[in-house]
Amino acid sequence: MDDLNQIGANAKRAAFQLANLDTTTKNSVLNQFSEALIQNIDTIVAANQVDLQNATDLPEKFVDRLTLNSDRIHDMAEGLRQVASLADPIGNVETGFTNSAGLMIEQRRVPIGVIAMIFEARPNVSVDASALTFKSGNAVILRGGKEAINSNTTLVEILQAVLRENNLDEHAIQILHDTSHETATALMHLNEFVDVLIPRGGAGLIKTVVQNSTVPVIETGAGNCHVYVDKTADAKMATDITVNAKVQRPSVCNSAEKLLINADVAEELLPEIASALIANGVELRGDERSRQIVKNIIPATDEDWSTEYNDLIMAVKVVDSLDEAINHINKYSTGHSEAIITNDYAHAKKFQQLIDSACVYVNASTRFTDGFEFGFGAEIGISTQKLHARGPMGLNEITTTKYVISGNGQIRQ
Amino acid sequence: MDDLNQIGANAKRAAFQLANLDTTTKNSVLNQFSEALIQNIDTIVAANQVDLQNATDLPEKFVDRLTLNSDRIHDMAEGLRQVASLADPIGNVETGFTNSAGLMIEQRRVPIGVIAMIFEARPNVSVDASALTFKSGNAVILRGGKEAINSNTTLVEILQAVLRENNLDEHAIQILHDTSHETATALMHLNEFVDVLIPRGGAGLIKTVVQNSTVPVIETGAGNCHVYVDKTADAKMATDITVNAKVQRPSVCNSAEKLLINADVAEELLPEIASALIANGVELRGDERSRQIVKNIIPATDEDWSTEYNDLIMAVKVVDSLDEAINHINKYSTGHSEAIITNDYAHAKKFQQLIDSACVYVNASTRFTDGFEFGFGAEIGISTQKLHARGPMGLNEITTTKYVISGNGQIRQ
Repeated sequence: MDDLNQIGANAKRAAFQLANLDTTTKNSVLNQFSEALIQNIDTIVAANQVDLQNATDLPEKFVDRLTLNSDRIHDMAEGLRQVASLADPIGNVETGFTNSAGLMIEQRRVPIGVIAMIFEARPNVSVDASALTFKSGNAVILRGGKEAINSNTTLVEILQAVLRENNLDEHAIQILHDTSHETATALMHLNEFVDVLIPRGGAGLIKTVVQNSTVPVIETGAGNCHVYVDKTADAKMATDITVNAKVQRPSVCNSAEKLLINADVAEELLPEIASALIANGVELRGDERSRQIVKNIIPATDEDWSTEYNDLIMAVKVVDSLDEAINHINKYSTGHSEAIITNDYAHAKKFQQLIDSACVYVNASTRFTDGFEFGFGAEIGISTQKLHARGPMGLNEITTTKYVISGNGQIRQ
Repeated sequence: MDDLNQIGANAKRAAFQLANLDTTTKNSVLNQFSEALIQNIDTIVAANQVDLQNATDLPEKFVDRLTLNSDRIHDMAEGLRQVASLADPIGNVETGFTNSAGLMIEQRRVPIGVIAMIFEARPNVSVDASALTFKSGNAVILRGGKEAINSNTTLVEILQAVLRENNLDEHAIQILHDTSHETATALMHLNEFVDVLIPRGGAGLIKTVVQNSTVPVIETGAGNCHVYVDKTADAKMATDITVNAKVQRPSVCNSAEKLLINADVAEELLPEIASALIANGVELRGDERSRQIVKNIIPATDEDWSTEYNDLIMAVKVVDSLDEAINHINKYSTGHSEAIITNDYAHAKKFQQLIDSACVYVNASTRFTDGFEFGFGAEIGISTQKLHARGPMGLNEITTTKYVISGNGQIRQ
């Protein structure tokens, strides 16, 4: 078993060094990370092959996520260069003012310290997360799925070698070699050393972490996203956005899982939207009213309304009003991304005001909830909680602030 | 036992109403809260008398915190009017931009939703917390100490009556009537309804909440604060700031608990600082070197370095360098507030850069870490964690944001 106290202490010491590293050095190291991946493609592929050979019992989709090949390694290398090119938030002064006692008070952006990440089968998360935490001056402790342990270990060793070559503390990036649940649980209780824990994976993983961790957690990713087609929706726009939100990449968290449609336009619009979805391979499940309009919608159960399929499945419900749509969404949504298709100004405003989700769209696909699409660059996850960060989390969202106060002898009266 | 699911569901429904309340209405209600307290002074004092009669076994300091009299009720009423006069952060647009797809993306400030507070004997916390959560559009569930249950219940009933008179949901402000540990623990697991839990009280309470809560917690208040007297410190300033930081209000979290002093000036400055502290009734504990300089310093134990006394006690340590001071502080501090007294520019900068605490002072008393002193107005606590908020938490820190995105048919390519 890994010695978590030692790993934690090492991470904390490395974090202190990282917090005070200049941007030029950080960018240079990130570019060297990138080069090192390319130079070590054969080594990485070989390690990945071991994982793939062990993955005989796993479903095809899972094996695909696990696979690393030359193209994917080049993508990771490109990701590292992109993170190098992002602006460094560390040292930014967020606010600065002088208080009534004459103290100059600055709120300065600083790293969080030590970030732990628990994730599943995608080995690219090791590299992506390391890049973002390194650039933002944080040490990272990675705990990937057991299926990817050889790939992850090899990737981290390559990055650590670059750190050593630059006379930097290699413990800035660490990976747990023991992928047992016991070690993961111990990591969730490492409050002395770990400042925040970010789980990345399915709903089960995230729930386990939230229920067990005493380290503060940022919840990411669960996306039971809705598209609501309002009475005044443009027909083509409604179809295009619903299809895009559902099928453009159904496995990800910002894809739509539910279609709500206003009763006044359901008879006219639903057949067209449904046939476009079906033509794209989507299985439709629906309430009684939607099934009266479109015959090949199968019955939805109560459970469907709160399920994130991450697959070519969509549940459909006919609603009588904007209010009913809003109430349904606020009840069943995971608070990720929701869209209304409307030409009614008041309805657009009301939807944006009353929906309690991280991203609320008018006349656009939910698929835009993404760090790159927002222009933030690579993201470490999409927060669906309300504390600290909400929505796509880029570099800024894995930092904190401290107040730096300069006086000339002030005492409190 | 309180029906926590019912209380949670009621809070969530009230939060939805509150989130959409205009500022003028909120301010009017806050001012009515203030008037209602004054009109009900006799009722409040009578309820408080019951608590005080039950408090026969409690220490004097505790009884003082528990006591409500006309003056203190007028102070609470004034606090309510002050919160009414603060700027309302809800609806502020934090950032706004157009992305490459032509989507207009606004990050809008919104309430968090339902905030739970677990606190100890001070009944004024009921009113202060209700004011801040109400103004920021959040519903609150209060769980005060059993010693103050009659006072707290009466205060909350007075506020709820005002809510009803204004046709607002009285569940915007709720208090648990059952003060058992079981109910407190159940509140810590009410993830379905509670968005954040803020404990206010001693280190024991905060530790219990952090270790048990699955609801996200903001840690507040623990303050093992340090003053470091550097080689070039002005003698008078060093004495004045150390005495102020220690004795001006020793029971609060921003008072200093530790004095570090550079060896080069310890013989010259420590006797003067120590005698000023002793003259103010401070008990000094110290390391061997400090005791060689000042005779009436008693020996400090290892435990002293991490203890928050909240009392007229201070531990003293002689250090050889700025680095030793920084390392000691980063090792033992709770990350609240630390000060250096120096005239060395590079040392001032280095201290502010390397100390990992919410507030880092040069030549000023740690006692300034306070919402009012910072100019934020009333605070709901001082965060010593790094997520979400760090330092004094005013209205802004008990809100979150959501992205509101306006398109004209954009789909993702």
